[in-house]
Amino acid sequence: MLTFQQLKKEAPGIIPLLPMLYVAWADAVLTPSEINSIKNKITSQRWLNAKEAEILEQLLQPTSPPSDAELRSWVQIIQRSAKDIPATDKESLVDMGMAIAKINMDNTDFPMASEEAQAALREIESALDVVSLEVPGNILTKEKTETGGAKSDKSAFQPEEMQHFLEANHHQLRKKVRQIITDDLLAYQPVTNKEDYRETILAWAKVLAKQGFGALAYPKEYGGTGDMSQFIAVFETIGYHDLSLTIKFGVQFGLFGGAIANLGTESHHQKYLLKTGTLEYAGCFAMTETGHGSNVRQLETTATYNPETQEFVIHSPTVSSRKEYIGNALHSRYAAVFAQLQTQGEGQGVHAFVLQLRDENHHLMPGVSVEDCGYKMGLNGVDNGKIWFDQVRIPRENLLDKYGQVAPDGTYSSPIKSEGKRFFTMLGTLVGGRVNVPFAGLSAAKAGLTIAVKYALVRRQFGPENEPETLLLDYPTHQRRLLPLLAKAYAIDFGLTYLAKRYSEKTEADMREIETLAAGLKSYGTWFTTHCLQMCREACGGKGYLAENRFTALKADTDIFTTFEGDNTVLMQLVAKGLLTSFKHEFGSSGAFGVLKYLSEQASQTLAEYNPLFGRNADQEHLRSLDFLKDAFAYRERKQLMQVADRLRKHIKRGMKSQDAFLRVQNQFLTLANAFVERLILDQFIDGIQRCDNPSLKPILNQLCCLYALWQIEEDKGWFLESGYMEAAKTKAIRRQIDKLCWEIRPHALALVESFGIPDACLAAPIATYQ
Amino acid sequence: MLTFQQLKKEAPGIIPLLPMLYVAWADAVLTPSEINSIKNKITSQRWLNAKEAEILEQLLQPTSPPSDAELRSWVQIIQRSAKDIPATDKESLVDMGMAIAKINMDNTDFPMASEEAQAALREIESALDVVSLEVPGNILTKEKTETGGAKSDKSAFQPEEMQHFLEANHHQLRKKVRQIITDDLLAYQPVTNKEDYRETILAWAKVLAKQGFGALAYPKEYGGTGDMSQFIAVFETIGYHDLSLTIKFGVQFGLFGGAIANLGTESHHQKYLLKTGTLEYAGCFAMTETGHGSNVRQLETTATYNPETQEFVIHSPTVSSRKEYIGNALHSRYAAVFAQLQTQGEGQGVHAFVLQLRDENHHLMPGVSVEDCGYKMGLNGVDNGKIWFDQVRIPRENLLDKYGQVAPDGTYSSPIKSEGKRFFTMLGTLVGGRVNVPFAGLSAAKAGLTIAVKYALVRRQFGPENEPETLLLDYPTHQRRLLPLLAKAYAIDFGLTYLAKRYSEKTEADMREIETLAAGLKSYGTWFTTHCLQMCREACGGKGYLAENRFTALKADTDIFTTFEGDNTVLMQLVAKGLLTSFKHEFGSSGAFGVLKYLSEQASQTLAEYNPLFGRNADQEHLRSLDFLKDAFAYRERKQLMQVADRLRKHIKRGMKSQDAFLRVQNQFLTLANAFVERLILDQFIDGIQRCDNPSLKPILNQLCCLYALWQIEEDKGWFLESGYMEAAKTKAIRRQIDKLCWEIRPHALALVESFGIPDACLAAPIATYQ
Repeated sequence: MLTFQQLKKEAPGIIPLLPMLYVAWADAVLTPSEINSIKNKITSQRWLNAKEAEILEQLLQPTSPPSDAELRSWVQIIQRSAKDIPATDKESLVDMGMAIAKINMDNTDFPMASEEAQAALREIESALDVVSLEVPGNILTKEKTETGGAKSDKSAFQPEEMQHFLEANHHQLRKKVRQIITDDLLAYQPVTNKEDYRETILAWAKVLAKQGFGALAYPKEYGGTGDMSQFIAVFETIGYHDLSLTIKFGVQFGLFGGAIANLGTESHHQKYLLKTGTLEYAGCFAMTETGHGSNVRQLETTATYNPETQEFVIHSPTVSSRKEYIGNALHSRYAAVFAQLQTQGEGQGVHAFVLQLRDENHHLMPGVSVEDCGYKMGLNGVDNGKIWFDQVRIPRENLLDKYGQVAPDGTYSSPIKSEGKRFFTMLGTLVGGRVNVPFAGLSAAKAGLTIAVKYALVRRQFGPENEPETLLLDYPTHQRRLLPLLAKAYAIDFGLTYLAKRYSEKTEADMREIETLAAGLKSYGTWFTTHCLQMCREACGGKGYLAENRFTALKADTDIFTTFEGDNTVLMQLVAKGLLTSFKHEFGSSGAFGVLKYLSEQASQTLAEYNPLFGRNADQEHLRSLDFLKDAFAYRERKQLMQVADRLRKHIKRGMKSQDAFLRVQNQFLTLANAFVERLILDQFIDGIQRCDNPSLKPILNQLCCLYALWQIEEDKGWFLESGYMEAAKTKAIRRQIDKLCWEIRPHALALVESFGIPDACLAAPIATYQ
Repeated sequence: MLTFQQLKKEAPGIIPLLPMLYVAWADAVLTPSEINSIKNKITSQRWLNAKEAEILEQLLQPTSPPSDAELRSWVQIIQRSAKDIPATDKESLVDMGMAIAKINMDNTDFPMASEEAQAALREIESALDVVSLEVPGNILTKEKTETGGAKSDKSAFQPEEMQHFLEANHHQLRKKVRQIITDDLLAYQPVTNKEDYRETILAWAKVLAKQGFGALAYPKEYGGTGDMSQFIAVFETIGYHDLSLTIKFGVQFGLFGGAIANLGTESHHQKYLLKTGTLEYAGCFAMTETGHGSNVRQLETTATYNPETQEFVIHSPTVSSRKEYIGNALHSRYAAVFAQLQTQGEGQGVHAFVLQLRDENHHLMPGVSVEDCGYKMGLNGVDNGKIWFDQVRIPRENLLDKYGQVAPDGTYSSPIKSEGKRFFTMLGTLVGGRVNVPFAGLSAAKAGLTIAVKYALVRRQFGPENEPETLLLDYPTHQRRLLPLLAKAYAIDFGLTYLAKRYSEKTEADMREIETLAAGLKSYGTWFTTHCLQMCREACGGKGYLAENRFTALKADTDIFTTFEGDNTVLMQLVAKGLLTSFKHEFGSSGAFGVLKYLSEQASQTLAEYNPLFGRNADQEHLRSLDFLKDAFAYRERKQLMQVADRLRKHIKRGMKSQDAFLRVQNQFLTLANAFVERLILDQFIDGIQRCDNPSLKPILNQLCCLYALWQIEEDKGWFLESGYMEAAKTKAIRRQIDKLCWEIRPHALALVESFGIPDACLAAPIATYQ
């Protein structure tokens, strides 16, 4: 056995390596091949003399590991030295080793003080990539608890700079919104009944309208800038405040105003848009019926044209045709009503009409009935109602006629001949609602994360005897609960930023693609919100259950996000169909076989197939390389697209009806759509990092990106193993990388949530007091 | 190409095989090796003549599959015959094939009419185990939609019989509880403020007390039967009604009454127990403090004995020592207060004391402060409060002194010498609360499933043109969302039944094991509840978001279950520690090495290692065999236990403090605990099936058990692949088996939720009207 004294005399060059050697051997996680790789790096260093190299060779024999007694003696010398090691040297095994050498050696002139040697040592340290908790502070167990279990909460970057980077062009606008929503006028009020709550929300919405926020996306002549991305930025920021207000704002200015703007023509704009933007005209979006939510095309409400009076008659023929869940129904003067247009005895499909619900004194117009939907799980500040019509007559010009006109004599005409295509074009222009929802969801998730992380930095429970209890965020389980979600919130932020940009710059040519993006990101983002808030609530225990700490509202208000503006499961089917269609279009001439040929070529052009060792490469450098991560996500998407296309083609070719064939692949569609969205988000995250020119932000963004990507791979590792893209050694190494990344990101957790820039007045949770 | 006419003339024996041949070839899912296995079964049948066998041989060449034209011609003849095939013959490919032969052949005397031949055919059919939607009704696409997408909802068993089986010994008692909770006295009332709601709940709790339900677990002389399992059965049934009532009931009779019964002695029983059971004395369980929830041992409240007055002084020295979240705090006259006992200048650890909070006029006693906790996410009918004490004096005899006594002079004595052991013994006697919680959670999950399944059987959306829209439950995605959860609810029912039995028959010797069971099943069960209700809400779309449809209350009320009566994450750590301790005890003499040796032997004694083909065996018969499922779950638990024990041992042996070593394996502990609970539940499910002597119930129970087990394997397939226990072919086949089981269970979904026996008055969701 080599004691420390012997080493000191015979092989002093090895002493700075002791922390690394200890970590390499002590951790049961290291496999022999991993130890081997470390060994190779160590022995290739030139600064060791022959004697030292020989001893090191012995110490790194995988077949004859050091005894437990040797390991114990190493850790003892490390821990004995701990009190004299400067704090700054405790964050790296190399620095720690150098410090130990300095402290314990009579002669400070030891061989690896050279810069070259230190660089070599750092390289070795980075090869020690598999250990999470023990690298590096944890070897010094005594030290650990003094600083509350881990490193300090001082971060290497400024939250303000991160916020500025994330908010990019909209930083000033969002700052202005933050001022308004933290104004005393909008201070949260105690829980009340829904009637009072709705009045408050209406008053607040008027405050926002007065600032010009509502009309932002409208053309300049109606008080806006015509820039949809500004409207989205405002909407997202309001999402830090009360979500009933956020949704009310979206319904009034986005949905109702959007229907007027996008489906109406000049005369409608002139008549309604300015007063909609100021909330002088409150309006609602009367599309969904009791019987038809997702399947809008089968709405039952009728709009029958009568050429004699030049009017449409709007009618609800059945109970199931009543409009339901209509936001703003109780406050609205107008409604954009979606109904089956019938003229000259023929149906022309769903069209939108402006219908006056109430007169100037807020009395219902003849034939109109409105009923409160009652209490909901959340969003009780939004006045959702049922609306139905008994032969309500409206003038011909109330048809929002951009995509379909009815002449005075009842002749129908449209720039789009196919009824199906017309329907989807009209619906496509309304995708703005769907684009906006995940932004509100993300804001809510960020609020939840901020509360949970701050609480985990003050709350202590259990711990070593006679010492302060341990902070929640220093428990590996707690890090695993919160930090991957934090990384995912950042990832989705990049994805949504891209969506907003694409949507606000949209042309007719890329509408189909944007619809796919919107459907995918809306579903993925809102499912994340629901899951994230649940985890955050649980991470706050009983305190999280008290209404004062905001999870009650955050969870309840966002719960509907997964099913409104399109049910997520249905939307994910649309995404998969969209992906298949794009490929079919791209390969129109060469037909289905062309697609398959292309796809199979693509699928084989991956890193995996170029290098037989790829599937089991478990090096940290490889696992954290953006090339590897991009390849993994792209491979999964292409392979799943190819497989599902192949199955569909076979089913149909062999005589199955296409309706049935699509049913057969429903579950695979969900998987494919998920793979698509995650690939897209990762690409945007990576683009964002490349865009970033602030050197203090890049490293942490890189870590978050790796944590997001590796976590999603871990969540789907069954698929990666089944497909043969990865082997078990690799997926196991990924698990350890995730643990390690959590540990690395832990000291930045506070700065990362502060970067969201949620005003304290909005957060308003007594447990989120950590500054 | 072989047309139907040619087959008819040259090889009539093949015609009844057509549906099977079509399915085998048309489904892109079948791999060549799977086709090969079918081929082997078909060609081994004796009833084919030489010519037929030769043609069949051709038709089953994996290297030269039938052309798409041939496949189309087969499906055409099948579909043409469909209208003449009797409905009863459409549920089996064999019957369908026979019917087609009968309809299309001039001569009804074809070769495989014999019983022997039919049995052989059925064997072939069961080998065709990989297809879900197409077996068998779906080939007849026209038929499919007529019956609403699948088979009828008439089930093969009577829900009443299933209910009787599930409720076993407590069927009569639960029937009585059902009568009470559906009585007009307990009719749900509109949402109100928390104050009124609490009064209602208190009044209802008194109704239950009057029936003798509260005292059930107490000894006979105090109004009970001494049978804890009866109390649990009542509690579980009340869980179908308002969950505030359920929790209030649990706090009053279970927690407060339980503390008196288990920690007190004869004099306390006489003084308090009878009046507690009748709710004449309302009482609360004042354990948790603001600063300490999970870590009870570090409570700060003090109880200092003063020998001069022979009193204890109960005091809250800090803000964090205030009792918090205490249920029944506003209604209680008494509290069981947990505090650090100090006498003769020494601390003796946490003990419980009876403290009078209020006098006969409901005025607070001197030194006692109580504050409402305010609105919570849910359970607002329960009056949770903070309580704190300013030097409150109580008589010496108010110490609940079963495990620790203080003599008049202040001398402390206890039958248990070690403070740690005494603390855990005391806490162990209070595990009843933890045992009960998952029952309430399961009842809520069952209510959610009942609502979602019934809605999915009336709600239609999208579908083929000119036909009724498709029922939600006929979508594969919808089946995948709800039916595995339904199977899991049944599985957990068996697990909890076992827990109740073990707990109510407990002896001192098996308390440690029961604590492990309770911690594991409480966590697993309540996490399931949260997840299940979320899925059910989403499956009901906007309707699920309306408060009237009950998900609002179900979700909000149960949300705290995952973190009260022990935070689930902390409890799962306890489970894993418990498992390790049991093994250490068992192998006390042979030491750690003995454990490891045993475990590694056990791990290799699995089906997997006996048979090299095991890892890729994808036969239905194998995948649905209870032996395979048991082995998979047991293998996982043992292997994970071995791995984590090995890691811990190494860490400690090499010099790591045990506190740190346990931190290092926290995440693996969660995984291990989950594997343990799932193994336990599966074993109990299988025992339950074996116990069942009703032949109409066994088949569906078997299917549910397989669905539960295979789904959990799928959820963890990454681990099974990483460990080498399964290969990709097998995990892929498991996915298809799950789809198929969903399809098979689909027609029984209604009967399966009706078997829970939730009274309509309790369910009370307008969307759950399907009968």
